[in-house]
Amino acid sequence: FTDNAILPADLIEASVQRIRNKEPDKGYLQYGINQGRVGLRRAVIEWLATYPGEADLSEQLGIENVLITNGSQQALYLTAQYLCDPGDIVLVESPSYFVFLELLKGLGLRPVSIPTHGNGHIDFEGLKALFETLESTGDLQRVKLLYFMGVYANPSARCWDEADKRALGRLIGSLPISLPVVEDVAYRELYFERPWPAKSLLSLEEWKGLPYLYAGTFTKPFATGLKVGFVVSAEREWVQNLARIKGHQDFGTSHFTQAILEDVVTEGVYEGYLQQIRPHYAAKMKALDAALRAFGLIELGWRWEVPEGGLLLWAIAPEGWDTSIGSPFCEACLRHEVIYVPGDLCFAENNPKNCVRLSFGVLNEIDLREAARRFVAAVRDVAGS
Amino acid sequence: FTDNAILPADLIEASVQRIRNKEPDKGYLQYGINQGRVGLRRAVIEWLATYPGEADLSEQLGIENVLITNGSQQALYLTAQYLCDPGDIVLVESPSYFVFLELLKGLGLRPVSIPTHGNGHIDFEGLKALFETLESTGDLQRVKLLYFMGVYANPSARCWDEADKRALGRLIGSLPISLPVVEDVAYRELYFERPWPAKSLLSLEEWKGLPYLYAGTFTKPFATGLKVGFVVSAEREWVQNLARIKGHQDFGTSHFTQAILEDVVTEGVYEGYLQQIRPHYAAKMKALDAALRAFGLIELGWRWEVPEGGLLLWAIAPEGWDTSIGSPFCEACLRHEVIYVPGDLCFAENNPKNCVRLSFGVLNEIDLREAARRFVAAVRDVAGS
Repeated sequence: FTDNAILPADLIEASVQRIRNKEPDKGYLQYGINQGRVGLRRAVIEWLATYPGEADLSEQLGIENVLITNGSQQALYLTAQYLCDPGDIVLVESPSYFVFLELLKGLGLRPVSIPTHGNGHIDFEGLKALFETLESTGDLQRVKLLYFMGVYANPSARCWDEADKRALGRLIGSLPISLPVVEDVAYRELYFERPWPAKSLLSLEEWKGLPYLYAGTFTKPFATGLKVGFVVSAEREWVQNLARIKGHQDFGTSHFTQAILEDVVTEGVYEGYLQQIRPHYAAKMKALDAALRAFGLIELGWRWEVPEGGLLLWAIAPEGWDTSIGSPFCEACLRHEVIYVPGDLCFAENNPKNCVRLSFGVLNEIDLREAARRFVAAVRDVAGS
Repeated sequence: FTDNAILPADLIEASVQRIRNKEPDKGYLQYGINQGRVGLRRAVIEWLATYPGEADLSEQLGIENVLITNGSQQALYLTAQYLCDPGDIVLVESPSYFVFLELLKGLGLRPVSIPTHGNGHIDFEGLKALFETLESTGDLQRVKLLYFMGVYANPSARCWDEADKRALGRLIGSLPISLPVVEDVAYRELYFERPWPAKSLLSLEEWKGLPYLYAGTFTKPFATGLKVGFVVSAEREWVQNLARIKGHQDFGTSHFTQAILEDVVTEGVYEGYLQQIRPHYAAKMKALDAALRAFGLIELGWRWEVPEGGLLLWAIAPEGWDTSIGSPFCEACLRHEVIYVPGDLCFAENNPKNCVRLSFGVLNEIDLREAARRFVAAVRDVAGS
């Protein structure tokens, strides 16, 4: 969830009036097409091309490479549904987005963790060895997808370096199978000070000709209630097939909310709004980070990386700590009236129990400080027992 | 598609302003929950209870019996996905909604036609015999769903008599399997003069305790671009499970468009709008019907039932006539610049080729008359050859 206080009610009301003037035939209130509004698909490409190093993207990709979805969540679902069959293996980060892990289970798919170094970087030697093991057991043909969040990941808030993306491309290109990769960038717009400098897969030399999809959203950083996401791929046939399945599911995303996003993005209202809210979320993150430190969480053996964007802070307790649902620590937090997402929900296997996902999206700075106070009090309760 | 000329741009703009005042915390721009807004789910039940003979419905069913979907299309998809496995059989009307038939193919399901009399009524002896045959071949366990459109069906514009619904309930209740039934009422609100008098499955004695779902939409008759539908079932566990799958697919329908529909339905704006547009569509249907007669289509051996609601007219050509894509008649229509939906797309098997679905939703009365002129001219071209 994002911060209700800064949701753009004014901007949306003004946009509704503007689209009415722009489309006197009222087409925005009528059915659209499965793939989504042409103007919005063009806006997706133009928007992505504004990121550092991605200007060339608009020469390579066009509206036929874009599908508009009901938030980026539907992009992920359609992709998994289209590319995988029950029993197939999907490689995921460690930790990974827990709703994606749930989605995989719902489709009967098997998540398997990509080996990761302690610093969060991909262990490429380990990944290569994993592919070799899967080949030796005859399971390599069942690996149908690799999923990662390139920027301010949910839950870890980590970002991928460009070097790692390039290395992954070389490894994927060397495999005896064609392995589709999804880069999920739901938080890309929510940087605090500057855009994360790594190019997306869409613009990297090593990924030319490799099978990948790029999934994002316009509404997470704007107004989650409007729910307009997108998937972009150089594989036009995939985009067509995802659009066909989406046609069965819902005939296309609400034409009205698409029209609003097309309007605010193309009119510059969207970028102006993002410029306003970035310092707001940066300040909230800093308030949470500072309060956790001030109340002594580091002295208690916890650690975290300070996020450079997003809405989440991923904190790691000392080895042996248990934050899972029903644990004494979880109970202590409920007593202190503070909640978190247990980290063990975010792993495909070996689910470490000593992590938590904290969110600074919803609360204001004062409440975040109070939440941190309660959280550390709960830690002390359990540490002292 | 509906008629752009009467789409309620004013009403929607006013509603956006109203919900802003109603929800100063701007919750309508934030994520909602998978199952949909509580107020909108309550509005669904209250709305259905306004239909003739359905007042008791609101005592039996509550908000936990309702799931809000991305149009009724998503309700149909989720239902088929949840209740069926690839290879299963789904019983459908003859003709049936062609997008539903496509959806079934996409999920690997096998549509089989319910036997029907020439007058469009269900042939219950034939249906009983079909169940017996399926049982004798061991296929009865693979029958997982029966789908029908209760009111102003797409494509036939037919309605089910209450007696037929009751008879279906008795037959379903007598089977050795539990067979879920979906009643799709996407056009129920679009009656011309009075609501179709038959109760829905929700209110019929014979259906108490039987497994069924009722799928409808608020936006087809209002503004298709807002895409807010619903499914209602006495089986709360089904509703919960559909909501869970929907959670994987999209986290719930756009909270913003839900809030607009909740507002217009509960404020009476919706009903007022429907009262205005019903005579509009009735007049358009009459214009098309009259023009087809005036240009001599009946003398050419075609026949149709005059619809009492909906947006569609189902016309049947003489035996042996071929209206399928690529047929000489289809080519003649393209030459005369008039289009239709070939009827053979609307059948599970034996696809008769001598039917067409005509729509009076989009064109005005003058253009409908011209369309009828062109259509009959194309018929004459082929009849004369």
